[in-house]
Amino acid sequence: MKFSFKNDYSEGCHPNILQALLQYNTDQQAGYGEDEYSKQAKKLIKEKIKNPNSEIYFVSGGTQANLIVISSVLRPYQCAISAASGHILNNETGAIEATGHKILSIEKEDGKLNPEDIIPILESHRNIPHQVMPKLVYISNSTELGTVYTLDELTKLSKFCRENHLYLFMDGARMGHGLTSEISDLTLEKVAELTDIFYLGGTKNGALIGEAIVINNRDLQQDFAFNIKQKGALLAKGRLLGIQFLELMREDLYFDLAKHANQQAMKIKNAMQRKGVQFLSDTYTNQIFPILDNGLIQKLSENFEFYVWKKIDENSSAIRLITSWNTPDEPVNHFIEIINNEL
Amino acid sequence: MKFSFKNDYSEGCHPNILQALLQYNTDQQAGYGEDEYSKQAKKLIKEKIKNPNSEIYFVSGGTQANLIVISSVLRPYQCAISAASGHILNNETGAIEATGHKILSIEKEDGKLNPEDIIPILESHRNIPHQVMPKLVYISNSTELGTVYTLDELTKLSKFCRENHLYLFMDGARMGHGLTSEISDLTLEKVAELTDIFYLGGTKNGALIGEAIVINNRDLQQDFAFNIKQKGALLAKGRLLGIQFLELMREDLYFDLAKHANQQAMKIKNAMQRKGVQFLSDTYTNQIFPILDNGLIQKLSENFEFYVWKKIDENSSAIRLITSWNTPDEPVNHFIEIINNEL
Amino acid sequence: MKFSFKNDYSEGCHPNILQALLQYNTDQQAGYGEDEYSKQAKKLIKEKIKNPNSEIYFVSGGTQANLIVISSVLRPYQCAISAASGHILNNETGAIEATGHKILSIEKEDGKLNPEDIIPILESHRNIPHQVMPKLVYISNSTELGTVYTLDELTKLSKFCRENHLYLFMDGARMGHGLTSEISDLTLEKVAELTDIFYLGGTKNGALIGEAIVINNRDLQQDFAFNIKQKGALLAKGRLLGIQFLELMREDLYFDLAKHANQQAMKIKNAMQRKGVQFLSDTYTNQIFPILDNGLIQKLSENFEFYVWKKIDENSSAIRLITSWNTPDEPVNHFIEIINNEL
Amino acid sequence: MKFSFKNDYSEGCHPNILQALLQYNTDQQAGYGEDEYSKQAKKLIKEKIKNPNSEIYFVSGGTQANLIVISSVLRPYQCAISAASGHILNNETGAIEATGHKILSIEKEDGKLNPEDIIPILESHRNIPHQVMPKLVYISNSTELGTVYTLDELTKLSKFCRENHLYLFMDGARMGHGLTSEISDLTLEKVAELTDIFYLGGTKNGALIGEAIVINNRDLQQDFAFNIKQKGALLAKGRLLGIQFLELMREDLYFDLAKHANQQAMKIKNAMQRKGVQFLSDTYTNQIFPILDNGLIQKLSENFEFYVWKKIDENSSAIRLITSWNTPDEPVNHFIEIINNEL
Repeated sequence: MKFSFKNDYSEGCHPNILQALLQYNTDQQAGYGEDEYSKQAKKLIKEKIKNPNSEIYFVSGGTQANLIVISSVLRPYQCAISAASGHILNNETGAIEATGHKILSIEKEDGKLNPEDIIPILESHRNIPHQVMPKLVYISNSTELGTVYTLDELTKLSKFCRENHLYLFMDGARMGHGLTSEISDLTLEKVAELTDIFYLGGTKNGALIGEAIVINNRDLQQDFAFNIKQKGALLAKGRLLGIQFLELMREDLYFDLAKHANQQAMKIKNAMQRKGVQFLSDTYTNQIFPILDNGLIQKLSENFEFYVWKKIDENSSAIRLITSWNTPDEPVNHFIEIINNEL
Repeated sequence: MKFSFKNDYSEGCHPNILQALLQYNTDQQAGYGEDEYSKQAKKLIKEKIKNPNSEIYFVSGGTQANLIVISSVLRPYQCAISAASGHILNNETGAIEATGHKILSIEKEDGKLNPEDIIPILESHRNIPHQVMPKLVYISNSTELGTVYTLDELTKLSKFCRENHLYLFMDGARMGHGLTSEISDLTLEKVAELTDIFYLGGTKNGALIGEAIVINNRDLQQDFAFNIKQKGALLAKGRLLGIQFLELMREDLYFDLAKHANQQAMKIKNAMQRKGVQFLSDTYTNQIFPILDNGLIQKLSENFEFYVWKKIDENSSAIRLITSWNTPDEPVNHFIEIINNEL
Repeated sequence: MKFSFKNDYSEGCHPNILQALLQYNTDQQAGYGEDEYSKQAKKLIKEKIKNPNSEIYFVSGGTQANLIVISSVLRPYQCAISAASGHILNNETGAIEATGHKILSIEKEDGKLNPEDIIPILESHRNIPHQVMPKLVYISNSTELGTVYTLDELTKLSKFCRENHLYLFMDGARMGHGLTSEISDLTLEKVAELTDIFYLGGTKNGALIGEAIVINNRDLQQDFAFNIKQKGALLAKGRLLGIQFLELMREDLYFDLAKHANQQAMKIKNAMQRKGVQFLSDTYTNQIFPILDNGLIQKLSENFEFYVWKKIDENSSAIRLITSWNTPDEPVNHFIEIINNEL
Repeated sequence: MKFSFKNDYSEGCHPNILQALLQYNTDQQAGYGEDEYSKQAKKLIKEKIKNPNSEIYFVSGGTQANLIVISSVLRPYQCAISAASGHILNNETGAIEATGHKILSIEKEDGKLNPEDIIPILESHRNIPHQVMPKLVYISNSTELGTVYTLDELTKLSKFCRENHLYLFMDGARMGHGLTSEISDLTLEKVAELTDIFYLGGTKNGALIGEAIVINNRDLQQDFAFNIKQKGALLAKGRLLGIQFLELMREDLYFDLAKHANQQAMKIKNAMQRKGVQFLSDTYTNQIFPILDNGLIQKLSENFEFYVWKKIDENSSAIRLITSWNTPDEPVNHFIEIINNEL
């Protein structure tokens, strides 16, 4: 079996989580998220973001989190704004539109939005009532392209959104990787302060399942649970989600796992850079997009699984490599060895 | 801590499942349901229903299964028909209507539908195009009231539906309990033969999470996976669902667990009947609805948790007791002891 | 051609409207409801309801008005409450559900709701977040059964709704008939004071097309126009709707037309009552439901068109007769003559 | 009052229509499109398209037609493809998305789609089931930019769509203008042959209201009326729509009116071209987009109303001029006179 760098959800979960599932297995607990584990996990998250007034809900996955948040927050005629690379635009089978809302798309090479990107959207949507009303800005951190927001970037974007009555929603399917990137100066506490809603992704960072939606804007908290139930996202055995986040949030496990994933990717990146390899984008998280000669790609694919991401020219393509909380040193070293041998 | 007879999703899962999660934890597997465990589990289910042409999809919970199936099967102007006690009508926060579809309700004491119930609905919905078009019959087995369909009943209903171009969809959140009821002559194979779609509930029968949707009508199979993804129900780590069903379907674990739950309920029922207790409905599954004097209810509630279901008169009420795959003998015996002492 | 008592939308429109359409035909006017005629018509309506703060929008028909109002006012998890005879429940092809909202139904013989009807609905919908949240009470005046609300009834219902944070929405497809009924003590001004939203039906009272939605609750006014456009209800030539209501609202034309319709129905009703005929419901508007011997129904149907509404027993049925603003004396007298001859 | 070249829905309707409304006003007719006028109008359209098997439905406006057609034809996970200038993308307040469907957008300078535009969309949407499935191609003729499809272009597009199992839907809000353009070799009969669905716009070509949806693909005809009713588009007095199309379809009135509009626009265009004016796009219908010096625009705007469409540079902008079936010679000549004097 070839080792896979295809994505960060190929394995199971961190052993602590399985251990906890075993330990608490036969306790009788209230259903639908009212169990003790969920309560404790929420308490831990509130401590970490230093905001006792935020409200937290656990759901199963990212598409589910995105569609529940957006359909809950918007009125029928309002729409979301997203970078063209946004997960909601091209990888969720129209899940947002299926709840009735358009997404306006902005082409960005780095997958990040700033106020200058959004101003033209606002200016070109003033033909009331013939156009949708832009109302929510969707961003991801780390982005779908592996890039991250700095504190300064997020602060400016947040200020702009508040001045323009736009909600700021951060998809944190890879929040751990974004915040532990070696170039990130952003903290979870700051994310909570600067966004209206965000979520902490568990699925791609050590959990079997689960994203923690954190609602910081109190206007958006009311009745949120109804939307979770209505969209079929309220697990009867909510303890399954609570236990995952309880373990991930203990001490710094969540961030330690993400940091490991980032470091493994950076090892490969650095090895390649030493050999002069170019990258499609300059990332410092667990996703890297090296541009390689097709022969080398062929050679690597005999030993590893990964996606060929984009054809560059007749002779070369960018590939995507993703590492995870569980990527061991061995395949990383093996990969680097081939690079060193071949380049 | 008082023992709870409130529902059948208070505990974790069967130890075999946790064992398997541990065992397979670090395998790298394809995501989104393409993993080996999901494939094997689907194979086992097809063998049990003796229909290699059925298609199977795993989702997280019952509301999710219901809304995906119904919104996938119906055209915008078509509607579902359900007994008034149907879970989709009153316990899913309008999840079906949120996908755009009306549910027509039929009052039934036993929670079961037969052709005679449906005929008046069809006759009163012929003012084309001013009314919704009835197109899907939703039934549950066991029902929300603990009752079960016999082979004869389901055969007649199935025949009627096919003659009238109605899809027959069985909610099997408690399929195990329905089929292993001491009065049931229905088999899983027959369910697959007589329905267009059904699902096998895992959450209430030994799993942490998971329902297996089985599509028997080949016209309804096409493109079903798109709907699962669009509704946010496609887990990245689909192995979580696959492993649960793989373990439940090995030999007869699924049915053994349900049978245990039923037997524990029947012990209590029989003890009560020996004392002359009346029941709100005559059930043979893991839900019983005894009518008790308020004083006795008070006494029992000092030792156990359960729902007071319905006020009967000034002095008595029906309570609901639910047992599970994991209900031990001890609380059952203790409960019976109180009954015997007090009546 | 037999004269039809089947409904009140069989003919064209009042001659004043056609005259105005001719007169203003070649004026260039702004589109989408910004024309002078619409503005003037809105001004007239505000004067009649004595509320300069209400906002008014014209749409094409009743189903359209109902679906726009309800989907605009409710959040995704909220639902409407209606008498079982409500037009939205059974005569609009699931239009409300198609916008995502459940309707809770209350069986009422007279088609009218009062606080006592609604209290049990509120009490049985407190299992948060597993059930929809009742939020809007839909009533019709006159009702689908021809009955009317008194000032006292509407006052009590309005007070109850405000105390319970429920919106009160009155379908006024036959508002003219309701308010000019000989037994009504309600006025348009009072309707505007006691409801959050209502509409004035034009289609069934002298217009070719058009209902005027009046939003009295200022919280519900914001951005309403977006919903009209989004649902495809914003006519490019809004003047068509404006001119209709401008003419209907001049002096008391709207009410004069409705009164005529009511009076023609009452002539037939009184003639029948003198002969001892019983009625399905005791109406004083343009809809009557006499119970007649099948032989007489046959005889009448040779001369007139009408609906046989409900079978009463082997020998008799209730029929529905509807008169309109344009029902002449001749067929009314002819109908009465047959009754007098046959009974 | 300045003469307006802002749009083609500023005036009322052609006198023949008002005459017919007067003439037929007091006939009693069946409601909801079952009237004699609607039936006759449908018959006339079938004759003109030479397809007795097409089905025809009248609705009030273009946004309504678009949302009903697209939501009726697509399954929940399917999407539409449109040129970026398509009316459904930017001028309908998200009406299509509100029915649950994404629209994929293609940037085209001339607003027209051909197979080469669509191939990359199909190729980039093969990650089943994570992406929407492209299923319907939306085109307009004439387009929102005033351009038209040739017979050859539509034939190739139609062939491509059929080979790729895509429905071809033509928005004909300005069908008359498209087909009577001096450069068009397309006929209504060919449109019916080459598309699955199209509509004939009345609102912008002599009617007060009304678009005629023509369904040529028999698979798409089934139960279409339910969707019209459910979306609130079924007028009780359907005669209003029937009479409009009955008059427009008599002899060649519909095409005569459009030809007049086109000719008035061409007069202005030709006068400008003689003076060397450039145009944003090379149109031969009733919409022209001349690029003029800001001083001249100012001068013209003292005499006429029109939209400044797009800033070209500091000194000049493109304006949009639209003529209609009712644009007299006088303002056209006056406009030309100013051009001739100033350039």
